[in-house]
Amino acid sequence: MVSARSAGLPVVVDAMGGDNAPEWIVAGAQIAAEEGREVLLAGPPELLESSGLNVLAASEVISMDAEPGISVRQKKDSSLIRAAEAVRHGRACALLSAGNTGAVMAAALLRLGRIRKVARPAVAVLFPVLGRRNPTVVLDCGANADCTPSWLLQFARMGAVYARVGFDVNKPRVGLLSNGEEAGKGSALVKETYEMLSTEEWESCGGASFAGNVEGRDLLLDSADVIVTDGFTGNVLLKTAEGVFSVITKAILAASESSDDARAGAKLFFPALLDTYKTFDPDNTGGAMLLGVKGVCTISHGSSSPRAIASAIGVAHDLAAAGIVEHLTSAVEE
Amino acid sequence: MVSARSAGLPVVVDAMGGDNAPEWIVAGAQIAAEEGREVLLAGPPELLESSGLNVLAASEVISMDAEPGISVRQKKDSSLIRAAEAVRHGRACALLSAGNTGAVMAAALLRLGRIRKVARPAVAVLFPVLGRRNPTVVLDCGANADCTPSWLLQFARMGAVYARVGFDVNKPRVGLLSNGEEAGKGSALVKETYEMLSTEEWESCGGASFAGNVEGRDLLLDSADVIVTDGFTGNVLLKTAEGVFSVITKAILAASESSDDARAGAKLFFPALLDTYKTFDPDNTGGAMLLGVKGVCTISHGSSSPRAIASAIGVAHDLAAAGIVEHLTSAVEE
Repeated sequence: MVSARSAGLPVVVDAMGGDNAPEWIVAGAQIAAEEGREVLLAGPPELLESSGLNVLAASEVISMDAEPGISVRQKKDSSLIRAAEAVRHGRACALLSAGNTGAVMAAALLRLGRIRKVARPAVAVLFPVLGRRNPTVVLDCGANADCTPSWLLQFARMGAVYARVGFDVNKPRVGLLSNGEEAGKGSALVKETYEMLSTEEWESCGGASFAGNVEGRDLLLDSADVIVTDGFTGNVLLKTAEGVFSVITKAILAASESSDDARAGAKLFFPALLDTYKTFDPDNTGGAMLLGVKGVCTISHGSSSPRAIASAIGVAHDLAAAGIVEHLTSAVEE
Repeated sequence: MVSARSAGLPVVVDAMGGDNAPEWIVAGAQIAAEEGREVLLAGPPELLESSGLNVLAASEVISMDAEPGISVRQKKDSSLIRAAEAVRHGRACALLSAGNTGAVMAAALLRLGRIRKVARPAVAVLFPVLGRRNPTVVLDCGANADCTPSWLLQFARMGAVYARVGFDVNKPRVGLLSNGEEAGKGSALVKETYEMLSTEEWESCGGASFAGNVEGRDLLLDSADVIVTDGFTGNVLLKTAEGVFSVITKAILAASESSDDARAGAKLFFPALLDTYKTFDPDNTGGAMLLGVKGVCTISHGSSSPRAIASAIGVAHDLAAAGIVEHLTSAVEE
């Protein structure tokens, strides 16, 4: 299903959100434009006009450490709010921001609004699986700290749609994150959700299959196509994985400087590691998607490289063109 | 404070628990004995007598995938139950098992019993911090899937005792695992626990300081000496960290075989990585401690190497000699 609404529309990019905004954001948008993507940059025209891209004027900036709720309500002429409004008013097919995550979520909720029947939008993050085409969709990674079983059920459905529409996974296997594989393991929330996911109705409606409980160690393995959890646990999972990756990377780099042999060996060996590094580097993935709002909303890492921003713009475009919002809408209506 | 009760007593080792039991467990116990540690092996004498170590006869074995509660109640002559009884009856200063985690916890609860006023024992796992002497104590890593704020408060206190007695940390900084650093971030459980940990009474009683919220990315950093969480989240954290470490390690090894240059480079470079690898390898750490039961109880990884078993025996010995159970007892009485 191609979304008629989004055909030909640009992705609107919050040029002022991100640790290295606007420079890296603009550079990423320029790469995407060179690759044939339509892009609209939201921010102060005087800063952006030299980019050669279309600009949506916005005079204010929401800082990375601002209080999300307050700033979104007060800064009505911020690049983020103006970008969200562009999607709402049909001037853009998707919103991308590498800014303050809480503010992006708040802006999307306020300006795009929830899809009807979605109890709570959820943040979906992609994790690579070596040797498998599709990444694992993990949600919720931070939007809702306390969840109910029925919200998790809806996350499962939305995650399955994302895997199907975004990565052509025919019948996504949905795993439930728990502290043990066996049925009956888990918190009260997980046990109750397990029962609900085990019903045949769920599987037939969702176009998915329930893979049972999965554990933290399954994150980068081919155990499931979608992993469902509450936003508190999902956020801990995401940040733990990123933290371990970052500490190991730094330790490897330090080791490569520890002796002449190490230096010489690393020079020969590191090129072979580069693909692996890129696969796992969080700054290289497309960013998180806020599923359940009326529009494609991508939240990129604050430290995203220009290349990562360009990739995320491409992904957002493709998801909009594939009509992911429409697919999500019908999946939760069922 | 040295525990008079434990002076001169052996660590009793469940010789039949572990993926490579009894061979690797016996080998580890032999290394520990050579290093001057008193060791008692629990298991079938016919399998263990050639070890040259003292043997505590036990005819039954609890398998790695047995249902913990049932097996512990039924297999009264198992190596695990006999080992726990040896601690209870003052014939050993500490119990070590690399067997079924649930069964070890159940055996310790049933045979050793809880320390008075301990609401729930918790599993404490050590995570290395590069460049820092003491590891970070994280608890609960799996004993209690659903927790109350007052349990977490007690975990904080027990974790601080572990950091102080086990690693000479003068005034341990206790962090509360959350989905954001700011006060006010977190699940309802975390928010309520935050309030309780922020009181002056807690800090003065606990001989610790409250470091506020910490995130998953702080796990391997010098952000806190103790990280407190519920057993569900802690288990996800532990298994995520182990899973990421394992996948990255395998990817590095695969890359080292991908070309002649990579092979040659890896040969020169890997020796410089070895210390880092050993620091992070879960099979090389001492294993988890069950804090809150009346005895030192170490739960080692099922795949622990003989060297890891020997180290864990040494750690268990030292903790018993330092009177950790007595310290925990007075900390929760306050």
